[in-house]
Amino acid sequence: MPAFRRSVPLDKAYRLLNHGPTVLVSAAHEGQRNIMAAAWGMPLDFQPPKVAVVLDKSTWTRQLLEASGSFVLNVPCVEQVDITQSLGNSSGLEMSRAGRDKFSAYGLATFAGQACAAPLLEGCVAWLECRLLPEPHNHQQYDLFLGEVIAAQADSRVFSEGRWHFDGHDRLRTLHHVAGGHFLAIGDSLDGRQLPLAGDV
Amino acid sequence: MPAFRRSVPLDKAYRLLNHGPTVLVSAAHEGQRNIMAAAWGMPLDFQPPKVAVVLDKSTWTRQLLEASGSFVLNVPCVEQVDITQSLGNSSGLEMSRAGRDKFSAYGLATFAGQACAAPLLEGCVAWLECRLLPEPHNHQQYDLFLGEVIAAQADSRVFSEGRWHFDGHDRLRTLHHVAGGHFLAIGDSLDGRQLPLAGDV
Repeated sequence: MPAFRRSVPLDKAYRLLNHGPTVLVSAAHEGQRNIMAAAWGMPLDFQPPKVAVVLDKSTWTRQLLEASGSFVLNVPCVEQVDITQSLGNSSGLEMSRAGRDKFSAYGLATFAGQACAAPLLEGCVAWLECRLLPEPHNHQQYDLFLGEVIAAQADSRVFSEGRWHFDGHDRLRTLHHVAGGHFLAIGDSLDGRQLPLAGDV
Repeated sequence: MPAFRRSVPLDKAYRLLNHGPTVLVSAAHEGQRNIMAAAWGMPLDFQPPKVAVVLDKSTWTRQLLEASGSFVLNVPCVEQVDITQSLGNSSGLEMSRAGRDKFSAYGLATFAGQACAAPLLEGCVAWLECRLLPEPHNHQQYDLFLGEVIAAQADSRVFSEGRWHFDGHDRLRTLHHVAGGHFLAIGDSLDGRQLPLAGDV
């Protein structure tokens, strides 16, 4: 394991997604694997940590995820903006029919997770391994998938002790997709202050 | 209406949330109203646009939302970081028992929506008025609420023609909560490029 990759305690795993980054969803089943971009993902619970993510019916990742019952949310960074755009704009199903997959097609390195069969993408800044929660109505009606996070890791250069700290690491800032390959990188930190109530001294 | 506030076409409404900002959820019912912060919200569909948001069982906003069948997602900005923190860290139910609400307690100005009874908070940079989709299992099991967006507006200084453009408006950047009143502001824009496939010329 690279020196900077660290396990994240499960009770802090929600903080990897709390600020709303675009994620890359990976899944694997019976020797096949895929990865896709998803801007529509969020935490759903603290402990045990849960997540929600929207996956269109047309996607190969969704088929692998439903078959395997697990998936990984990889959190990509500025360094990976072209990879993220390409993974969001290509069809794993078409590639699989041609006997290849997105990982080989784009020359992407992966590593094995701690709890899921799905591959984890090298170069991301966080990884959440998830067990699918069976909710067929949400799958069919809303393309909405819920999962329980069973293992989490992050790049300690930018996430440690439950906080992101991107200063000095602009290439490791998380990506936030707007539309059509246009992204915003996450910016500077600031702290909110509790305001006094009107009428209170 | 202030000169900078503009309606957003419904087919572009998802772009107001696509980059994962923290939102302020407002609801009103029979003369009572409340507003709370929620980091766990996301788009759920393009057209008709839908959203998902997580609301704890203890919240007064949730009670008003369930009673009225509608809610508003207000998107706050850096200028409002103290308001956002305060709205996320105070109880509307306690205030209502004391005969006040968060709007009066914090001196917050609101304006009427186009489609919902819930108040829209002045100073935010986007507003999505939503009709609650009745999904009792998601409400009870996951504190998860789905809504259809029936009207949307944005501050045209930072959102127009389906894109955010925050350059020169640092105080209007969206907020992305990490934990405990610690936020990240959204940063600079960048565009992803489609990579060639390995082996292709």
